[in-house]
Amino acid sequence: MATINDIATKLGISKSTVSKGLNNATDVSDEMRKRILETAVELGYTNKRLQKKIKKLCILIENMDYTTPNHFGYDLILGFKQMAEPEGWLIDIVPITIDFQKLTPYGVFMMQQGYQAAFILGFSLLDPWMAEFHSCKFPTVLYDNYIKDNPYMASVGCDSEEGFDLAVRHLMRLGHRKIGLISGPLDSYILKARYHAYLEALDKHGLEINENFIGLGYYVAESTRTYIPKLLKEGVTAILFSHDIRAISAITECDDRDIRIPEDLSIIGFDDLPMTSFTTPPLTTIRQDRIALGKCGFYALSCLLNHVAIGSILLRASLIIRESTGPAKISDQQKI
Amino acid sequence: MATINDIATKLGISKSTVSKGLNNATDVSDEMRKRILETAVELGYTNKRLQKKIKKLCILIENMDYTTPNHFGYDLILGFKQMAEPEGWLIDIVPITIDFQKLTPYGVFMMQQGYQAAFILGFSLLDPWMAEFHSCKFPTVLYDNYIKDNPYMASVGCDSEEGFDLAVRHLMRLGHRKIGLISGPLDSYILKARYHAYLEALDKHGLEINENFIGLGYYVAESTRTYIPKLLKEGVTAILFSHDIRAISAITECDDRDIRIPEDLSIIGFDDLPMTSFTTPPLTTIRQDRIALGKCGFYALSCLLNHVAIGSILLRASLIIRESTGPAKISDQQKI
Repeated sequence: MATINDIATKLGISKSTVSKGLNNATDVSDEMRKRILETAVELGYTNKRLQKKIKKLCILIENMDYTTPNHFGYDLILGFKQMAEPEGWLIDIVPITIDFQKLTPYGVFMMQQGYQAAFILGFSLLDPWMAEFHSCKFPTVLYDNYIKDNPYMASVGCDSEEGFDLAVRHLMRLGHRKIGLISGPLDSYILKARYHAYLEALDKHGLEINENFIGLGYYVAESTRTYIPKLLKEGVTAILFSHDIRAISAITECDDRDIRIPEDLSIIGFDDLPMTSFTTPPLTTIRQDRIALGKCGFYALSCLLNHVAIGSILLRASLIIRESTGPAKISDQQKI
Repeated sequence: MATINDIATKLGISKSTVSKGLNNATDVSDEMRKRILETAVELGYTNKRLQKKIKKLCILIENMDYTTPNHFGYDLILGFKQMAEPEGWLIDIVPITIDFQKLTPYGVFMMQQGYQAAFILGFSLLDPWMAEFHSCKFPTVLYDNYIKDNPYMASVGCDSEEGFDLAVRHLMRLGHRKIGLISGPLDSYILKARYHAYLEALDKHGLEINENFIGLGYYVAESTRTYIPKLLKEGVTAILFSHDIRAISAITECDDRDIRIPEDLSIIGFDDLPMTSFTTPPLTTIRQDRIALGKCGFYALSCLLNHVAIGSILLRASLIIRESTGPAKISDQQKI
């Protein structure tokens, strides 16, 4: 474990300057404070005195709404707090931007603010801190992201494989055999995971895997508009969506084209957002229990803080069957 | 939640008989007690009065030694206890046989003994209780086993994919390109998982996948004897083993045949059993941190007891590099 002395030696400055830098004293320049903090992070120094005084965690959030109960992040944060606060943790919710990440390294941010650990929501593979996570030593739990080889990092999420397996079994019972996927592009950990889960589920149940049954596109409405007719033309009778928001856009699109759901096409979302009960028809979807996911986030952090180097906790998925799925329409190909 | 009344109605007996049966009174026949307990389990009745009095967990163990520190199960149990006892849980360690499982259903056993939850070690797919686990409602965590669709069951284990990925990357840095696998037959959850992890790792790193590089056999020494010459003939220069015990038998076998490790063949085990430091040469192996796995077992049970329906917690694997791996020998095929 590195000491103040190690930092002083490495920087060629006095121990008292290091101490001032670590404790935000005003007679140290911003430039010097930054060098001291960065070196402290590099050497793995932990400010024990500070840490003993307060138990402080942060939830860092990006690309995710969380301020009202119908927002996706709201329940995640609530579940986390329900576990953490009774154990005496102070929790800050900190929205993070890409610009902020470019200015301040993650380790420096954590040390400056006196956080012992963090729960990270909504980061994408493009976030600058994602690179730093490979070597950082602050216990950190990521929702729907996975960092290889670093025992200070853990992942929590809902089991996509279980979710799509439940969905495919439900569709098969309804007679569907040609099942498509419409998803965002494979530029995030979770979209890759869902894509593989889709292939895995088809393979496991002996269904046709065909690249023409799959539509990947960045823009939600546009890709729905492009791919729904394409997939129907291929004889697809049911479509899984990577997220509810895409399934909901499919409802609008099908309405415009007089494609009846579920008579002409069954659709299944992923997430069980609050609004999915109120669509016409109400959406069959794979549920992630967001409160439980937040709790998992804290369990995972507890493991890491207790030196149990877990890689991941997966929450079970469940299928919420509503009215957007029904018996398969016999496609033209099958009739012949 | 079912009541004593529900049990009485279902069986057509009085409430007081049900109560006597549940509380092991002597004036109820064994036959009747069994019917009462089985019905209680079926209806999901929980004996709240009993449960409030004592917090009691069990570790059910089979096919695994655990009594002395060099046994595989010893550390698993120790890690579990280190987490559970400070929280006030009483823990019984109960060896379980297949015959016992045939006589007493799992739910009846749990209710009779007043256990709230269980951690299960060493069960195979053939164990009678495995079928009951699909519907049982006692929070139960299985080490190296996975039960689909039941939110009362969770799984803990070491990440086989991460383990074999680390092993394959290590071997590739040493110049190996033809990497084999020797494993037990695919009749257990964990052996299937390791088999898939092996294929996944080769695929990810663009290495040749060839069924002739794989040897699966029940008997350790016999399958090692059969497959080592076969794999070498195929040009394999390194072999992953599903368990240390098989890798250790390979050391003996290679010694008998004047095959030098690692000059002629690199080998990697899985588990990091205590004895692997003392073999000649000491064994490179994938480490499962058994104490941490035991702790994971308790974290997973805590989730379930708190109604957080996790499916799995995976512990990170690490690669312990000793002397059984070295630079690849250029095989006859590669020389040409």
